[in-house]
Amino acid sequence: MNNFDFYNPTRIVFGAETVGRLADLVPADARVLLLYGGESARKNGTLDEVRAALGTREVQEFGGIEPNPSYETLMRAVEQIRDQQLDYLLAVGGGSVIDGTKFVAAAVGYEGDPWQILETRGRHIKQALPFGSVLTLPATGSEMNAASVVTRRATKAKLAFSSPHVYPQFSILDPTKTYTLPLRQVANGVVDAFTHIMEQYLTYPADGMVQDRFAEGLLQTLVEIGPKVLAKPDDYDLRANLMWTATLALNGLIGAGVPQDWSTHMIGHELTALYGIDHARTLAIVLPANLEIRREAKRGKLLQYAERVWHITEGTEDQRIDAAIAKTRSFFESLDIPTRLPGYNVGADAIDDIVKQLERHAMTQLGEHRDVTLEVSRRILEASV
Amino acid sequence: MNNFDFYNPTRIVFGAETVGRLADLVPADARVLLLYGGESARKNGTLDEVRAALGTREVQEFGGIEPNPSYETLMRAVEQIRDQQLDYLLAVGGGSVIDGTKFVAAAVGYEGDPWQILETRGRHIKQALPFGSVLTLPATGSEMNAASVVTRRATKAKLAFSSPHVYPQFSILDPTKTYTLPLRQVANGVVDAFTHIMEQYLTYPADGMVQDRFAEGLLQTLVEIGPKVLAKPDDYDLRANLMWTATLALNGLIGAGVPQDWSTHMIGHELTALYGIDHARTLAIVLPANLEIRREAKRGKLLQYAERVWHITEGTEDQRIDAAIAKTRSFFESLDIPTRLPGYNVGADAIDDIVKQLERHAMTQLGEHRDVTLEVSRRILEASV
Repeated sequence: MNNFDFYNPTRIVFGAETVGRLADLVPADARVLLLYGGESARKNGTLDEVRAALGTREVQEFGGIEPNPSYETLMRAVEQIRDQQLDYLLAVGGGSVIDGTKFVAAAVGYEGDPWQILETRGRHIKQALPFGSVLTLPATGSEMNAASVVTRRATKAKLAFSSPHVYPQFSILDPTKTYTLPLRQVANGVVDAFTHIMEQYLTYPADGMVQDRFAEGLLQTLVEIGPKVLAKPDDYDLRANLMWTATLALNGLIGAGVPQDWSTHMIGHELTALYGIDHARTLAIVLPANLEIRREAKRGKLLQYAERVWHITEGTEDQRIDAAIAKTRSFFESLDIPTRLPGYNVGADAIDDIVKQLERHAMTQLGEHRDVTLEVSRRILEASV
Repeated sequence: MNNFDFYNPTRIVFGAETVGRLADLVPADARVLLLYGGESARKNGTLDEVRAALGTREVQEFGGIEPNPSYETLMRAVEQIRDQQLDYLLAVGGGSVIDGTKFVAAAVGYEGDPWQILETRGRHIKQALPFGSVLTLPATGSEMNAASVVTRRATKAKLAFSSPHVYPQFSILDPTKTYTLPLRQVANGVVDAFTHIMEQYLTYPADGMVQDRFAEGLLQTLVEIGPKVLAKPDDYDLRANLMWTATLALNGLIGAGVPQDWSTHMIGHELTALYGIDHARTLAIVLPANLEIRREAKRGKLLQYAERVWHITEGTEDQRIDAAIAKTRSFFESLDIPTRLPGYNVGADAIDDIVKQLERHAMTQLGEHRDVTLEVSRRILEASV
């Protein structure tokens, strides 16, 4: 096991009818900016419920944070906060809204050009506005971590940053708030969480026995509930387990003390930036091909994954690995998510462009061994056609 | 799944050679009281290493905190802190030292008689001195939770309290610090952690799929490494996995959103108070008998435990439950820990006294269904002879 620091001070308030807890969680004298995405938060009544819980506090709104939140949009929120002297942020939405809120929180008081926050991966953040979240879409884990991804539309650059200053103070996770989500978003959330776990688990054996068991437990849970959460949108326990699984998939716990990969994400980000494919769907395209191409370096863990997650114990090692990768692919497909580029109208002729983007963003040494060169990424993309 | 709050702000610093991190973790101007147990911390060099890392800070010592830390001893530390105007505590030791430090931290500024902290289970604690810990014995989980158990020698009362004010600010977990522990203490740690998990897991099905998988993963890890950590005391990865497992066994995570039992602990506490049996050993006595006597109420989870932790899939339901309880008992025995009262020179004639103690401490409605009456406790004790 590798040495590690684990620190996660976000308070999780979990369960039905918990939005009212905002009355105690947000400081009584806070001047609040509510940040949200589309109009669904208003239409389904969540915004009203949030406002009611906040009572007589000064509350302003900033809507329109898009999926893959943009620097351009978020800087308008920064201006509003400075103009109106607001001092507390409340994100109401999914990972994009919370990621965006983290950027806004850090940018308001940042010395220098806020775009540097992303260029320096958050290293120079010295403070941030306090904020909480009301999560409406289980997927990214942003509600309980200190990381964020922001896109600059002008240059199609999608960059990540993190800082201990941008942990949410609290996140309210009410599974009933997910009942009305479009099924496409729920399916995306399952794949997103699944891939977050795989990036931290499917590397090489490092004697992190607890981390492995936890990762396998989360994967097994997703395999068990994935198709069911789509079939029964208002089943409380299914939605609750999906929500808690997605949070634990990326709150720092299963990745502490073990190697991590993240090459699937880095390649996937370029697919979103170039072709506008949903983030989770880019992961469903890249992950199976990635496991296939790097099966030798990942052999030990692929065999463990085959046995413990998919209960595959028959056949040669290579047959078991083939079967585990096939199971992964068909799990994603069972959620109605295509796992090959042509399923998104992108063909083999696009691979040159994608590799060029990776090169432009210095994504030339990815993965747990830093050996995913542009050439390896190319082969992964070729295997995903 | 039940509604829950999960909040745990303790920073874990994990790995070999991490004691030096104290230089940054403790405030530079802190006036520190080092709290520890016996002289082993001095003899094995840990105290010197801690003092070196603390540099020029004002550092005083308070040694002699006993297993099952006593109110009487701890109040002397409170006096020293008040006299010397110290403002930061550093616990160096196992669960007893950390539990004791939590009490001291809360007692120093407590309004009223500090014994009330225990009588009111910590409800009225409004502040506590900040503190950190250097863990030397993996077992209790105290290094990453806000609970503590203190014994008043005069009345043989062993009481617990908890408060969000007594989370350690940080805990340093260096597995190499456990190499020189007596094997008896290591074995006790395995059983203590195992039982902590069982108290939160082996109740009734509550659709906490993630909590179940995590609990089962921790149990499987202990089963896998238990005898090995005794056979190879200086195997880093074994000790690291034991240490991290014991911490996660009781940091609030696996118990969030699910029913909890704790009757084994409550009955066990009386055995320690009356006969001085090591805490963990009382759990090894009570747990198998408890599962046996309450097998009907726990049937669903016992079958799940049999299958997922012990891979028992053959036979009738009752045969599988029998086999799982037998496996539990023989796991403890494999660590050289007797699982019946006569193994500690306590016979059936003691049961009346034990039940009287339970009655005196109002332990008349224990367990996840509050149905462990004194009569049920008596039957559990009878089954443990």
